[in-house]
Amino acid sequence: MTGRRRSIATVCLSGALEDKLAAAAHAGFDGVELFAPDLVGSHLSPAQARDLCADLGLGIDLYQPFRDVEGAPPELHARTLRRARHAFDVMAQLGTDTVLVCSSVAPWVIADDDLAAAQLRDLAEEAAARGLRIAYEALAWGSVVSTWEHSWEIVRRADHPALGLCLDSFHVLSRTDDVAGIAGVPGEKIFYLQLADAPSLDMDVLQWSRHHRLFPGQGSFDLPGFVGTVLAAGYAGPLSLEVFNDVFRQSVPALTAVDAMRSLVDLESKVDDGAGLTPAPTRPRPGFVEIEASPGSALRVRAALRALGFARTGVHRSKPVELWEQGTAALLLNTSRPTATPRPDAAITALGVAVEDPAGAARRAEELLAPPLPRVVGAREAQLPAFIAPDGTAVFLCGPDDGPGGWRADFAPVQDTDGATVPAGDVPAAAGEPAPVPARPAAVGLVAVDHVTLTQPFDRSDEATLFFRSVLGLTVRDAAEVSGLFGLVRTTVLGAGDLAVGLNSSVLRRGSWAPGVPAPQSVTFRTDDVFATARALRERGAPLLRIPANYYDDLAARLDVDEGLLAALREHDVMYDRDADGGEYLHLFTRVIGSQVFFEVAQRRGGYRGYGAADAPVRMAAHAAVRTHA
Amino acid sequence: MTGRRRSIATVCLSGALEDKLAAAAHAGFDGVELFAPDLVGSHLSPAQARDLCADLGLGIDLYQPFRDVEGAPPELHARTLRRARHAFDVMAQLGTDTVLVCSSVAPWVIADDDLAAAQLRDLAEEAAARGLRIAYEALAWGSVVSTWEHSWEIVRRADHPALGLCLDSFHVLSRTDDVAGIAGVPGEKIFYLQLADAPSLDMDVLQWSRHHRLFPGQGSFDLPGFVGTVLAAGYAGPLSLEVFNDVFRQSVPALTAVDAMRSLVDLESKVDDGAGLTPAPTRPRPGFVEIEASPGSALRVRAALRALGFARTGVHRSKPVELWEQGTAALLLNTSRPTATPRPDAAITALGVAVEDPAGAARRAEELLAPPLPRVVGAREAQLPAFIAPDGTAVFLCGPDDGPGGWRADFAPVQDTDGATVPAGDVPAAAGEPAPVPARPAAVGLVAVDHVTLTQPFDRSDEATLFFRSVLGLTVRDAAEVSGLFGLVRTTVLGAGDLAVGLNSSVLRRGSWAPGVPAPQSVTFRTDDVFATARALRERGAPLLRIPANYYDDLAARLDVDEGLLAALREHDVMYDRDADGGEYLHLFTRVIGSQVFFEVAQRRGGYRGYGAADAPVRMAAHAAVRTHA
Repeated sequence: MTGRRRSIATVCLSGALEDKLAAAAHAGFDGVELFAPDLVGSHLSPAQARDLCADLGLGIDLYQPFRDVEGAPPELHARTLRRARHAFDVMAQLGTDTVLVCSSVAPWVIADDDLAAAQLRDLAEEAAARGLRIAYEALAWGSVVSTWEHSWEIVRRADHPALGLCLDSFHVLSRTDDVAGIAGVPGEKIFYLQLADAPSLDMDVLQWSRHHRLFPGQGSFDLPGFVGTVLAAGYAGPLSLEVFNDVFRQSVPALTAVDAMRSLVDLESKVDDGAGLTPAPTRPRPGFVEIEASPGSALRVRAALRALGFARTGVHRSKPVELWEQGTAALLLNTSRPTATPRPDAAITALGVAVEDPAGAARRAEELLAPPLPRVVGAREAQLPAFIAPDGTAVFLCGPDDGPGGWRADFAPVQDTDGATVPAGDVPAAAGEPAPVPARPAAVGLVAVDHVTLTQPFDRSDEATLFFRSVLGLTVRDAAEVSGLFGLVRTTVLGAGDLAVGLNSSVLRRGSWAPGVPAPQSVTFRTDDVFATARALRERGAPLLRIPANYYDDLAARLDVDEGLLAALREHDVMYDRDADGGEYLHLFTRVIGSQVFFEVAQRRGGYRGYGAADAPVRMAAHAAVRTHA
Repeated sequence: MTGRRRSIATVCLSGALEDKLAAAAHAGFDGVELFAPDLVGSHLSPAQARDLCADLGLGIDLYQPFRDVEGAPPELHARTLRRARHAFDVMAQLGTDTVLVCSSVAPWVIADDDLAAAQLRDLAEEAAARGLRIAYEALAWGSVVSTWEHSWEIVRRADHPALGLCLDSFHVLSRTDDVAGIAGVPGEKIFYLQLADAPSLDMDVLQWSRHHRLFPGQGSFDLPGFVGTVLAAGYAGPLSLEVFNDVFRQSVPALTAVDAMRSLVDLESKVDDGAGLTPAPTRPRPGFVEIEASPGSALRVRAALRALGFARTGVHRSKPVELWEQGTAALLLNTSRPTATPRPDAAITALGVAVEDPAGAARRAEELLAPPLPRVVGAREAQLPAFIAPDGTAVFLCGPDDGPGGWRADFAPVQDTDGATVPAGDVPAAAGEPAPVPARPAAVGLVAVDHVTLTQPFDRSDEATLFFRSVLGLTVRDAAEVSGLFGLVRTTVLGAGDLAVGLNSSVLRRGSWAPGVPAPQSVTFRTDDVFATARALRERGAPLLRIPANYYDDLAARLDVDEGLLAALREHDVMYDRDADGGEYLHLFTRVIGSQVFFEVAQRRGGYRGYGAADAPVRMAAHAAVRTHA
């Protein structure tokens, strides 16, 4: 959107060189940084690699890395020049003109800026003679040169037109937050800009860099500020991603490359006043939650919904999908899929998100490379734009009202024949002419969807967070690491307006003893009186989760809970959390329906803004106990 | 073996409390530290937990942790005492008498040793009244108290018989190597001793402690020195393992508990002058390497062995197993298994290790909880003791000679009818009367097995290293992290005498894009002239691996290899490594036979002691290229 080149280092991606290049091209990158070991291990000659890139429409924007140049004893410097001639030969065959020279990490480095400048000038002179140029980068752990200021001082002293800087956001931001000085570097002396984010970790910087880098927006560096400063200095080269990450090294490269491109588009929008990216939807709210179930599991889901006070208020006009409602909460139960496919017996497979401008939200999703949902829309069905999140959940964008053309029009109103009765006045008489839809009566006091929690695949958890943040414009509301019965679980809740989505993933990919996927998904409903709801649920025979008595004994000691409240919590298997400001979260759970979906009912008191993560370990243990013994 | 109690904290193990307790008991622990959250999440009441432990023969040696006692403002101290009464109630029901109090991490802590001592004394007074006692531990990241010396100063000032120290090797050794001062603490004031090892990592100590602890002998702490000092001070309580580890949290608890016990037995032998553990075998050497193959793959393995110059010199007297030999290298090809089992088509499934005293080595293995190999020995077969390594490989212990009673006696000598001829004089005429076995002629120059490389399951890589170190008495000869095409691979080579075993495992468990298991296993044979061998292999049509031309171009620049040598390397697809002392490693590879076994041929020059890890990324890429395109 900005006319600026976008590049990605091959080291970001898994697989053989062909896999990496194909993935980069498919995601829309203009060029790559060719990581030398990726070429050395390839059966493609440099010339073949060049041709393959050309076929794919990719430039080779950088060849990297070339190591241990500056500060060498004289006899080693002669060797450096011989090594460089080999690199220049390879570059000539590759058809690339810029090589990354990173600051020396050798033990022999002589700390002498003039010597360093002279040696880099020698290299630049040879490069210039062949029409090439040197981008010199300070590694954060360089033996002598470890800051961008120091690398700039040496480039300045060398004063050669074929020698400039490479700035890498990781190396700069892992050492300092102060990047303002970069504005003083002439833009034409910044030859290359590498971008990586990283989580805030207090650890050896080399290990941090080699294993834990992330794409922009997935970590905690101020990338917009950094990039803005570099661009303000006059840098006009590619924005290039260089991310060393243990997970990305083993993940499907085509997906990683799209994730990378999404991060770059999002970053540019934050640097360039939007950069043409359609703005994020304002005030999104939950539309519907769709559960797909095999026929057998559908019986269990229906029974659970009915016991939770939901009424079946509609059936889809052309598909085996039912609409269940209570308060403003709407659930779709979809039994259309073939039962032979090896999928969970019941799963949350789609979210409807209500936004002011569905077409705009869909445009933004497309601009951010959200994969569109392939589907066949029936003649009379709503044309809801939809895309697929990293965990496979379909996200439908619904309009702000539920009138004609809205998704509710796809459903023929029904009188629920199985028990609960839908107030007659709520159902329009003629199909196709939907009346304004009122909130359904809250049979057991459930008034709305509070949040939906999805399970992310291990390889894609960082991608998933950025996906929801960027595409829907959500922000992180809560993040925690939970010690589950079978391993650690990372949980992140993102939200905007009334919409909140929790993303859980295991910290390590699980094995057969402790399967991590599919882990439970859940829908949390809000009540204004958890105990009244709990009583009603018990009367209706809801499949409630028993909480261990030890939890309440511990709670009493831990949080000094009032005796009367404690007795009520204990009686109704309601869990309890309290935040630092005295806000309270009272919540109860159903058992897992089928193999991976449960429901939560929560009451928020006193402005509690969390999601009860402190209770998650006991909740997980209680769920596991039921499933083990079921 | 020492009469000392051995305990393990429930937090070391995965699963529900019942799983953890059963695993600890099964591995032979005398007691557990009950991690309070494991009880809180359990449906077992404290009394039921006590009864379950009693049924399993486990004591509850410690209840932990109780937090944030010392340095509290007065109003909080009153709350502390209320919380403590709850903990004491639970302990009474559990039937345990010692609670771990760890140093405060709260922001409100008042730095006043006399106040801290007074508050701990209050707690101890209440504990003493109920027959309980307090073990006070300095967390390495405590707000004020973060060293064992400081915790001891406070215990000394408090001067209460129910207040003593808990020493945790992680908290002590992560802060200091100087543990000598512990010798000055009266043994009876050390109430509890927690043991954990850890890899050497330069990172935030809390994260290091919570995620990366290991069992003793798996990391780099001097645990024998530490434990020796504490015992010398007069400590007489349990040796108790407390290991927070992300992998162990999700691994099969019964296996983790055995790994834990093995580490403790090994540790005790290093503290107590052997502690009754049978000494490790001296000078082990390779006996045989057994490859199991499906009938179809067996054809390919046979063809490869023949092309590698091996001759079939024997057939097993009662099983479909063939003996193939060259030089001193002996391979068994086993086609006995049912083909219906979903196992790799060909795999290294057993190692014969020749030792001076097989019975002693077997006794040591049993003492170190190596699982015995269940099998049926035929009437006339050698009674080789055998056990199973963590990756499932059977390890057979063979005697020093191959005479009567040795494993060769199981094989009837054969004239190889398929091509290569076994010199007649080498084969004894009468079955059952094996002659001394000479070294087979080295048809293509292979003289011996150099090393065998096995693939470890992700969850068990730390266990595997300790297993081979302790059971066979090997030491680590090389360790590296290799950047493979599909992710990082950790490789560790262990050895003693002529025996060397490489253990590879992926750094993260792989997904479907980048399967990590089964990753290739390999046998490396030594030659004295790699180029003569390479020529012979080519003539015999061995399935040799092509190395990318780029590798040689890079090698020339990287290592300044002599032109003539470089040409020879390139011609014969031989890879080349050189160590800092000028030692050289010249090695070539076959393609992968079946899905997971390949062979390597290596020549060592000038005392090279490594295993060519620097070449592994290109070798992996070359293997992957063949497999992808096959």
